[in-house]
Amino acid sequence: MRQNKPIRSNLCLSTPERIVVQGLDLPNEILGNLSLGDMAWLEITGKAPTPQQSAVFNSLLVTLVEHGMTPMAIATRLVYLGAPESLQSAVAAGLCGLGTVFAGTAEGAAKMLQEGIGSAGERDLGAVAAGIVAGFRAQRRGIPGLGHPVHKPIDPRTPRLFEIARDNGYEGRYVELMKRIAAEAERVMNRPLPVNATGAIGAVASELGLDWRLCRGIAVIGRAVGLVGHIAEELRNPIAKEIYERVDDEASEHLR
Amino acid sequence: MRQNKPIRSNLCLSTPERIVVQGLDLPNEILGNLSLGDMAWLEITGKAPTPQQSAVFNSLLVTLVEHGMTPMAIATRLVYLGAPESLQSAVAAGLCGLGTVFAGTAEGAAKMLQEGIGSAGERDLGAVAAGIVAGFRAQRRGIPGLGHPVHKPIDPRTPRLFEIARDNGYEGRYVELMKRIAAEAERVMNRPLPVNATGAIGAVASELGLDWRLCRGIAVIGRAVGLVGHIAEELRNPIAKEIYERVDDEASEHLR
Amino acid sequence: MRQNKPIRSNLCLSTPERIVVQGLDLPNEILGNLSLGDMAWLEITGKAPTPQQSAVFNSLLVTLVEHGMTPMAIATRLVYLGAPESLQSAVAAGLCGLGTVFAGTAEGAAKMLQEGIGSAGERDLGAVAAGIVAGFRAQRRGIPGLGHPVHKPIDPRTPRLFEIARDNGYEGRYVELMKRIAAEAERVMNRPLPVNATGAIGAVASELGLDWRLCRGIAVIGRAVGLVGHIAEELRNPIAKEIYERVDDEASEHLR
Amino acid sequence: MRQNKPIRSNLCLSTPERIVVQGLDLPNEILGNLSLGDMAWLEITGKAPTPQQSAVFNSLLVTLVEHGMTPMAIATRLVYLGAPESLQSAVAAGLCGLGTVFAGTAEGAAKMLQEGIGSAGERDLGAVAAGIVAGFRAQRRGIPGLGHPVHKPIDPRTPRLFEIARDNGYEGRYVELMKRIAAEAERVMNRPLPVNATGAIGAVASELGLDWRLCRGIAVIGRAVGLVGHIAEELRNPIAKEIYERVDDEASEHLR
Repeated sequence: MRQNKPIRSNLCLSTPERIVVQGLDLPNEILGNLSLGDMAWLEITGKAPTPQQSAVFNSLLVTLVEHGMTPMAIATRLVYLGAPESLQSAVAAGLCGLGTVFAGTAEGAAKMLQEGIGSAGERDLGAVAAGIVAGFRAQRRGIPGLGHPVHKPIDPRTPRLFEIARDNGYEGRYVELMKRIAAEAERVMNRPLPVNATGAIGAVASELGLDWRLCRGIAVIGRAVGLVGHIAEELRNPIAKEIYERVDDEASEHLR
Repeated sequence: MRQNKPIRSNLCLSTPERIVVQGLDLPNEILGNLSLGDMAWLEITGKAPTPQQSAVFNSLLVTLVEHGMTPMAIATRLVYLGAPESLQSAVAAGLCGLGTVFAGTAEGAAKMLQEGIGSAGERDLGAVAAGIVAGFRAQRRGIPGLGHPVHKPIDPRTPRLFEIARDNGYEGRYVELMKRIAAEAERVMNRPLPVNATGAIGAVASELGLDWRLCRGIAVIGRAVGLVGHIAEELRNPIAKEIYERVDDEASEHLR
Repeated sequence: MRQNKPIRSNLCLSTPERIVVQGLDLPNEILGNLSLGDMAWLEITGKAPTPQQSAVFNSLLVTLVEHGMTPMAIATRLVYLGAPESLQSAVAAGLCGLGTVFAGTAEGAAKMLQEGIGSAGERDLGAVAAGIVAGFRAQRRGIPGLGHPVHKPIDPRTPRLFEIARDNGYEGRYVELMKRIAAEAERVMNRPLPVNATGAIGAVASELGLDWRLCRGIAVIGRAVGLVGHIAEELRNPIAKEIYERVDDEASEHLR
Repeated sequence: MRQNKPIRSNLCLSTPERIVVQGLDLPNEILGNLSLGDMAWLEITGKAPTPQQSAVFNSLLVTLVEHGMTPMAIATRLVYLGAPESLQSAVAAGLCGLGTVFAGTAEGAAKMLQEGIGSAGERDLGAVAAGIVAGFRAQRRGIPGLGHPVHKPIDPRTPRLFEIARDNGYEGRYVELMKRIAAEAERVMNRPLPVNATGAIGAVASELGLDWRLCRGIAVIGRAVGLVGHIAEELRNPIAKEIYERVDDEASEHLR
């Protein structure tokens, strides 16, 4: 016979008169005091952010909100075309595309950095970076957080994110290691491989103390905002039907 | 032969050196300047918010972030248990539950109010409210935005949201109509039916000029934040496996 | 203090040695004996199908598997492009688009027919049909299951589905009512409005005794099969990246 | 300037009078002739199955339809509780949980076998199996398709699936290699590690010639059927609300 284990959550207490989130009274202590980004910090870490944490974390969240007609954004618009009564499902469908290929890579960068720093011991970060780059190359895997198909030679979001981190006291060893990995990769592979936005997010999120397994959540939150924005535009200027009809026509043209 | 129509989006221009969102340079004009909630406003309306719009809109977004172990939150945790490599899909799965029964009702309230004000003409808002209540009753449909199974006699979020709206100059005819509908419904049905949080959100979002079809998006954005919070707690203190095993055991016990 | 209610399911008993589904031993009584479509019938109704039920139900399930590059299929391919490690999420994303606009309409047709027959009493089906058509017109709502934007003058799937139903003893009053509704709608609106595939599915599913709330499930099952087919083709001949890049380029061209 | 590449699909041609799927006329050649499982084969491979392929492939599809109150099934029921108007999204939410932990492992087994046979050359399968087991152990990764937390000492689905494969001429080198891997793993780790259902599916699907990247699709199709079955039962005997309320009560009890 199995023994029950307790089921507990500290996130919320809801009574007839009160709603308490992470120990704070929602109507009186949160509403009007915490912005959405600060609320995200409270939800994830259990504490309201300092002004510095708020500045840095909001900049991470904002970075991935909008990047044009991505596969996710097109998917959201197409699903909305079929089920306009379920806006939530259209956003959900788009979010499903936030995997290993596009914005999900912040997670991989943070994992690499947190494991790297965790096992660095007395070693110099240059040596740690060299070991990491060699390890990825030995497994023939791409190094997360480096290079970008469009934004060249540098990803313009990266220096700005590092600047915001530095201005708020969050540019430390993780950011340093990320930069050293980029430098080592460029040296070894002999081509430009600057830190991209997801690499910067992975590094700065690590400075903030976030578990690498949650870094994809930063992208998920930001992109959820952006996908609602795409639906807002789709309502003003619908294009999903045109995309669908063009694709359907062209794809079957050769069968006619 | 069908004629192609143009496919256009104004949300983002991305070049090798630049990312421009809604006409603003992302690294230089947005990062560090706009918080996540303000970015949501920019995405949805096309303009950066005034301080008043920011205060009111952020309070709407924050309201629905966290409400405990809702069906959505449990679903997200269970899906994460099965596919921990796809955090985005776990959040997506939870969002799918944000339909007509729970938080999706902000949409219905906003629709009711926007259609009510749109057709009010010279009529007094009390008369408009009476017509709306009579209409729902004739169709035997519940009036969106009224009453709450837990928060009684009043939903503590509602007066606070209306207060924030008033303090920032956004308590106008939509809020007034929502209150009048509640009063009329209480009078006709002879039981307490105060405005609940989704009713307040529908009313205040209408004051902000948001299309009722986007009001569910406010809940979607907020809940996406909350569901990432549930995954963060699940990582620290896992309970999904216990929920699954208890349910599975009990459900099949009678077949043994 | 709330009182627990029992949590029970009859679907499956799983012990170390056995798996029993709906009372049948999975390895010995189901595998090799029931095809996938028959298993679907077992799951939904609790009993293995007769040969007639099998023939009719499989034809319903097969009808909506594939209809080309629908919005759902494109969404699945785009999500797969972003998250190829999560095939399940790509199918899920596409399914989310199966709402009120496209294949979800079988549900509406079945609801209309089941309510119509349920309240018919002694009335002639022609009178019932006239009442239904008048009711939809009074509410300015489209009648589910009639007409098709592409398949004109008749939807070629409909006569075949009705034929299979008839050959197996399942063409009764629901099919009759569906046909009468089409005839009445054509008469009143003075244009061709033949029964389409979802109307036929709604009618035949009603003949099989399926609750209208499950009729969308027929489309969901069929389309899940089809969406895996689209991923199979995407692996052989990828087109999602081309769709994305063309749309992204054209959509932002005017901003350059 | 980018050059457009063609967008082509061979799955379906739809004209006013006809719907042709994979070269077969849907109303006249498919409906009434192909069952749902056979249609799945047609969709994925482009050809109608032989009777042997049909028997084997249907048994694979049927295996994973139902396994009780899995995390996926509970998630589907909870999402349906919140959004009963969107059955498709409830199924989609459940499918999202079909990842690396539960049924998704058929994919890993098939990958292991297809790469193993692909690189076997002249080597004996015992040697190939030894190399595979050693490789997984060196990387401290679990071997996909072996062992089961509940079904011990053997998974009763496995011998039956292998029997059906053998009876239809599809028990070859992939099945052989899977068995050898199990034997080698048991020998090296000195504990029972029999082939489980997903291991059997991965092996038999490889015999059928299916790309390992599609093997998760077998589980997705089967489970989509099962999740509709759970919704059917939820309609007859609702339990999602009870699950939700119990969890919510217990989780926040310590905060009161």
